[in-house]
Amino acid sequence: MDYQKIIEDIYEAIRPYEKEGQQATYIPELAKVNPDQYGMHLCTTRGDSASLGAADTRFSIQSISKVLSLAMCLAIKGDDLWKKIGKEPSGTAFNSLVQLEHEQGIPRNPFINAGAIVMADILLTHLDNPEQDFLRFVRAVAGNDTIDYNREVAASERETGYLNAAIANLLKYHQTIENDIESVLHLYFLMCSIEMSCRELALAFMAFADHRREFNYDGIALTSSQVKRINAIMQTCGFYDEAGEFAYLVGLPGKSGVGGGIVAIYPQQYSVAVWSPRLNSKGNSVMGLKALELLTSETKESIF
Amino acid sequence: MDYQKIIEDIYEAIRPYEKEGQQATYIPELAKVNPDQYGMHLCTTRGDSASLGAADTRFSIQSISKVLSLAMCLAIKGDDLWKKIGKEPSGTAFNSLVQLEHEQGIPRNPFINAGAIVMADILLTHLDNPEQDFLRFVRAVAGNDTIDYNREVAASERETGYLNAAIANLLKYHQTIENDIESVLHLYFLMCSIEMSCRELALAFMAFADHRREFNYDGIALTSSQVKRINAIMQTCGFYDEAGEFAYLVGLPGKSGVGGGIVAIYPQQYSVAVWSPRLNSKGNSVMGLKALELLTSETKESIF
Amino acid sequence: MDYQKIIEDIYEAIRPYEKEGQQATYIPELAKVNPDQYGMHLCTTRGDSASLGAADTRFSIQSISKVLSLAMCLAIKGDDLWKKIGKEPSGTAFNSLVQLEHEQGIPRNPFINAGAIVMADILLTHLDNPEQDFLRFVRAVAGNDTIDYNREVAASERETGYLNAAIANLLKYHQTIENDIESVLHLYFLMCSIEMSCRELALAFMAFADHRREFNYDGIALTSSQVKRINAIMQTCGFYDEAGEFAYLVGLPGKSGVGGGIVAIYPQQYSVAVWSPRLNSKGNSVMGLKALELLTSETKESIF
Amino acid sequence: MDYQKIIEDIYEAIRPYEKEGQQATYIPELAKVNPDQYGMHLCTTRGDSASLGAADTRFSIQSISKVLSLAMCLAIKGDDLWKKIGKEPSGTAFNSLVQLEHEQGIPRNPFINAGAIVMADILLTHLDNPEQDFLRFVRAVAGNDTIDYNREVAASERETGYLNAAIANLLKYHQTIENDIESVLHLYFLMCSIEMSCRELALAFMAFADHRREFNYDGIALTSSQVKRINAIMQTCGFYDEAGEFAYLVGLPGKSGVGGGIVAIYPQQYSVAVWSPRLNSKGNSVMGLKALELLTSETKESIF
Repeated sequence: MDYQKIIEDIYEAIRPYEKEGQQATYIPELAKVNPDQYGMHLCTTRGDSASLGAADTRFSIQSISKVLSLAMCLAIKGDDLWKKIGKEPSGTAFNSLVQLEHEQGIPRNPFINAGAIVMADILLTHLDNPEQDFLRFVRAVAGNDTIDYNREVAASERETGYLNAAIANLLKYHQTIENDIESVLHLYFLMCSIEMSCRELALAFMAFADHRREFNYDGIALTSSQVKRINAIMQTCGFYDEAGEFAYLVGLPGKSGVGGGIVAIYPQQYSVAVWSPRLNSKGNSVMGLKALELLTSETKESIF
Repeated sequence: MDYQKIIEDIYEAIRPYEKEGQQATYIPELAKVNPDQYGMHLCTTRGDSASLGAADTRFSIQSISKVLSLAMCLAIKGDDLWKKIGKEPSGTAFNSLVQLEHEQGIPRNPFINAGAIVMADILLTHLDNPEQDFLRFVRAVAGNDTIDYNREVAASERETGYLNAAIANLLKYHQTIENDIESVLHLYFLMCSIEMSCRELALAFMAFADHRREFNYDGIALTSSQVKRINAIMQTCGFYDEAGEFAYLVGLPGKSGVGGGIVAIYPQQYSVAVWSPRLNSKGNSVMGLKALELLTSETKESIF
Repeated sequence: MDYQKIIEDIYEAIRPYEKEGQQATYIPELAKVNPDQYGMHLCTTRGDSASLGAADTRFSIQSISKVLSLAMCLAIKGDDLWKKIGKEPSGTAFNSLVQLEHEQGIPRNPFINAGAIVMADILLTHLDNPEQDFLRFVRAVAGNDTIDYNREVAASERETGYLNAAIANLLKYHQTIENDIESVLHLYFLMCSIEMSCRELALAFMAFADHRREFNYDGIALTSSQVKRINAIMQTCGFYDEAGEFAYLVGLPGKSGVGGGIVAIYPQQYSVAVWSPRLNSKGNSVMGLKALELLTSETKESIF
Repeated sequence: MDYQKIIEDIYEAIRPYEKEGQQATYIPELAKVNPDQYGMHLCTTRGDSASLGAADTRFSIQSISKVLSLAMCLAIKGDDLWKKIGKEPSGTAFNSLVQLEHEQGIPRNPFINAGAIVMADILLTHLDNPEQDFLRFVRAVAGNDTIDYNREVAASERETGYLNAAIANLLKYHQTIENDIESVLHLYFLMCSIEMSCRELALAFMAFADHRREFNYDGIALTSSQVKRINAIMQTCGFYDEAGEFAYLVGLPGKSGVGGGIVAIYPQQYSVAVWSPRLNSKGNSVMGLKALELLTSETKESIF
């Protein structure tokens, strides 16, 4: 399959949508990004790759980092992780407190903010140097030592992060988190602030796309079955209140972030990342969703 | 792969659970079924099959019929169907009214009761003889003309079906359904009352498992892309409030019913049905879930 | 105090609002009423009275009848009534199903629709001829044998009463009501359809305003303490989601109906009824609320 | 009426309940209080008084202080106050976040925690020395200069006050509060920590019971109508999710606190305070509720 031609055709087909949607502005630092950017990178298990546009521009991966936190937490805690976090789709916005209150402080899944805050708490409890350890793991998965946090973005998000602070306090009230709230939020926002390009994300997510590879990065090891289960959670919970829509239109496990990035995988075939900062009302990249929908329509390849 | 040996090994492994759970008793007729039954049937796209236990005993397929309603409604309405029904996982019990009230009478997905009641209304509006037409379609998909409704089960369910009547009235209030409430409920309960065996279900669901087949039964035609999208909805919404758990443990699209049946498909590989009436607290067959979990662990085959 | 002058002054003061709001149209028969009518009647425990406008025109008292149902049910069941109905303000719209589902089929209070439907069920269970018995009681309280149901309004409301039918089905599902749903709804809508004028309502509610009177009408007897407790429920629950607002602005126990009527009492002083069909967004008469607010401001009389 | 004999008889009648309920333990300092204490004080507008038990022992008035905050905020802001806070009963627990999220950061009423936190914010914005100003106002209302904050209780509550911190963050997110969260919470907890005896509380609440008095304390002035409206809010919202029950059984405006205190007023007649630390499941003093229920039954005096 000529993926390079396919992603070029896709770009031509979706250009009419390039001014649709709004970039996230609630994080002051993110509001400064030029919204009119678009990049895509796809790499296959056979070693091929295809690239287009700003595929090498780094952006804030935001919630995409939650997949990497999940990998680390699952490696550390095994199935005990699920005592503190559920794995059901949430049916409400990513930042809702309602469900958390109804369910006694157990987040519905690891990809809503509440779930990711619990994962930050777990890393704080179990790691000697959580900041460095998480970054080392990400660099190892991506095979790239220049990937880093953007501490200005993290600080900017903490400053106005009242809703996440409300969530963290509610989790502390329910004794779901153990560490002090400021440390947990600090690590949470830091993990969200990691910057990667489409190329780097696609390469990193080959660790999930290709089960035949051993998953062991910087000592963080998962079985093939655990990797598949992370993929299953991406499938059911990766797109907030639009997970069903993504499954319906795209048919691949994936994860989006409010920085405008989306990464998706076709198990044992390819990993793909796309980036464009303008978001729809559910917080997912408009151009990113369109591109992935066309990709699986064009190629007639989906997990279903 | 020797599926016959695999399903025999699975049965031995899960026998310790055979008294766990309770059969559904809220439908008086279903309470009469002997709960200590177990059957499984698997058939592959290459024509192989494997069978065990009560694989030829018919049971009430209940909510599994919603996949067949969805196929018929999607063939009739195309993507207009999604104006009246969502496709997001529900995050609440299958019979909740709360979400329906919050979302102005638009059911979250076709597999919660509210969604299936809307589909019954659509069939009533668009078909000349909805009862006969639906049955003819099911028989055509299954390639078996002896499949039928169980009118006693349907009548028994209507008699005590106050919650579904509440849902139908709420849908009528919101003008989501057009026909009179009793006709809609009559058809809804009748569709749920269809009786099939594991063998018959597995054969019928090959229509979803095998995309290379043309989907056209009794004039009800779907494109390959539409079939895949139905599979995607099974994946995200097929198990009520346990969809994430099923994706995590089993990793296949599927659908369960309170009669104790579960059907699942591995696209382009196989279709499998398992039946055992004892249910867990979420309304899914205890033995059925265990069997399918072991099946994909054993074979190391899942869509992820 | 010259109440006649006061209510005349009030009318002049509130005339600017006479075109504000919309009459209820969801009950087809009610939509036929001329919305530009206004009447008021006040009578004191000392035998004085004051009257203005259409004070002798009968209108559909609708939810105001729930106070009379409550009196009858409390006389029949005593405090056992509170096993099936709560007495807390509802905090949601009068017709919400959400709270009912969360609270396992126990309506929050007797004045939301769910509570009044439960009261209709109780009357059906305990009375030989519920329709006639309730009407006889109302006539006795009002001292007027010409008061009657409007069966066309009741029929018109049943025809489109899907939301109340949803509520009744949910109550039946939770086994809060015993009788068959159609009978319960029939009686419920009939009780709502009673027609009375402001003068008749004010006279009838003297039974609640004046504790020194014995409460015993057609054999339905309440202690003075029970009458006061009904007044307390009017105070906390009489105005749907606007009970706090009414307490704040008016400061009297009262009850409104979607026909545009409001009745209020000042214990041991007076009873007052006002009617004007145009409603605000919460379902309460715009002119009625204004008139009562001015009445207690003018007279400086309120229970607080 | 011989109130002294009445409150003595009441005490004898309710002694069987003296071990029922649990004192609040979520505030570590409050858990140290001896739970087996009981005091009551009543004073009339004619200058009589009655006293029993630990009527002169000071305790943490907690939420009772919210009535005093409301008086101060209403004096400062007038009806503009209601742009930031509603006045409807809440229908949920005093500390729920759900309603706050549904209603876009506008607390339902001033007496749930969210409402009181908004009032603390308003005082911070409008006063030069909010801590001292509020205390001076309370001392002036009570006519007693020895009343004070208990800074250990306030600190103890802040330390474990995660739920209130969650609420404050959610309010900040919705821009309902202006000042920084720690300052707001500091003042909020401080106001709750005021210690008064039953005698002092009863005397202070004469300011609300007796409208003929001018309300002007340390420059904080309210009209007679404003005082009555505060009483109306006590009536509809003073007892969390038990406001209807209190109206039904007692029939007086009042306010409770988790320290075990309850104050109630009979407008133009008397003010009464009762204290006993053991609480029922709704957070109200068991003995306090019983005592006030008997008081209005015995005296046959209530606002209804």
